[in-house]
Amino acid sequence: MTGRRPGDSGTREAILAAAKEGFGTQGYAATSLRSVARAAGVDPSLVTHYFGGKDGLFEAALELPMEPGALVTGLLQGAVGTLGERVVRTFLLVWDSTPGQGPMLAMLRSAVSHDDSAAKLRELLLRVLLRPLALGAGGDDPDRRAALVASQVVGLAMTRYVLKLEPIASAHPDQLAPVMGKTLQRYLTGPL
Amino acid sequence: MTGRRPGDSGTREAILAAAKEGFGTQGYAATSLRSVARAAGVDPSLVTHYFGGKDGLFEAALELPMEPGALVTGLLQGAVGTLGERVVRTFLLVWDSTPGQGPMLAMLRSAVSHDDSAAKLRELLLRVLLRPLALGAGGDDPDRRAALVASQVVGLAMTRYVLKLEPIASAHPDQLAPVMGKTLQRYLTGPL
Repeated sequence: MTGRRPGDSGTREAILAAAKEGFGTQGYAATSLRSVARAAGVDPSLVTHYFGGKDGLFEAALELPMEPGALVTGLLQGAVGTLGERVVRTFLLVWDSTPGQGPMLAMLRSAVSHDDSAAKLRELLLRVLLRPLALGAGGDDPDRRAALVASQVVGLAMTRYVLKLEPIASAHPDQLAPVMGKTLQRYLTGPL
Repeated sequence: MTGRRPGDSGTREAILAAAKEGFGTQGYAATSLRSVARAAGVDPSLVTHYFGGKDGLFEAALELPMEPGALVTGLLQGAVGTLGERVVRTFLLVWDSTPGQGPMLAMLRSAVSHDDSAAKLRELLLRVLLRPLALGAGGDDPDRRAALVASQVVGLAMTRYVLKLEPIASAHPDQLAPVMGKTLQRYLTGPL
């Protein structure tokens, strides 16, 4: 095919770029391995070769600095009493380290307009990140605690990166982590 | 004009429907009194006649059950110690009473994809609603407190109505108000 890139790394990058574009603009359900392969000018088998499947491709397109499961494991290795504050710091680190918040902001935008992207973000937030976190923190009713944590961190993303609401938009993590961390700490381990 | 509706009420409704469509899909800046008038098939002077101007039209298109300023005044008339919980209850009442959360959800969607709609929502949230609320509650640093409250209520709207994250999505206000109210109470009047 004319569009196919020469080296391994070029091919992988082309697939990833097409995936980001697809998931960000078409949503999760409407983006197939086949449509990504077509946009990247490669054979669909190469997408499976590099990313395993659609979920792997999706997670790679998010460009998280760490694998989500490892993020949770790392957080749970610290003292449970400072978990809330560390969650805020990790969340801000992940978002702030991506220029323009690219793929994560695209996922949030896509979730707001496509029901299937909302379902995918829900799954990532709850099943992969926040439910394991709430379970690990040892509180009762992990589903409820995970949803409460989601409400505050999604709200943080919305006010800081989408609505750009001051003084949250330009606050240093040191200013936000203690205040919002206290909320997350109560949602994770406090009496509800 | 062929499209103009006969009675006063029909004309007003046609303008309002065109405004909701415009603000929801094109965003705040791209929607003009003229474009709304054209879509409604009426003379632009009628839009000014019924809604005063663009801000009046925008607030009417949101279809809040109360004028936003009156909402804040009402909340500040109760005991300040229960303000956080009453803010959550009022917020849920306003959103839950609109089938499908129509115009407010449209505004949130529009804010996520259009910078000018984000600016408008920011203004409505801060200048009209939350800054007066934080000022009235008497805490120091009203701007910071208003932004913190915004982060939790916008997150509540996102998890309940957009991501439909359980158990928040189907929770009764009595289940949410005490838990999130405590967060808002601290953001409004507690030590930060």
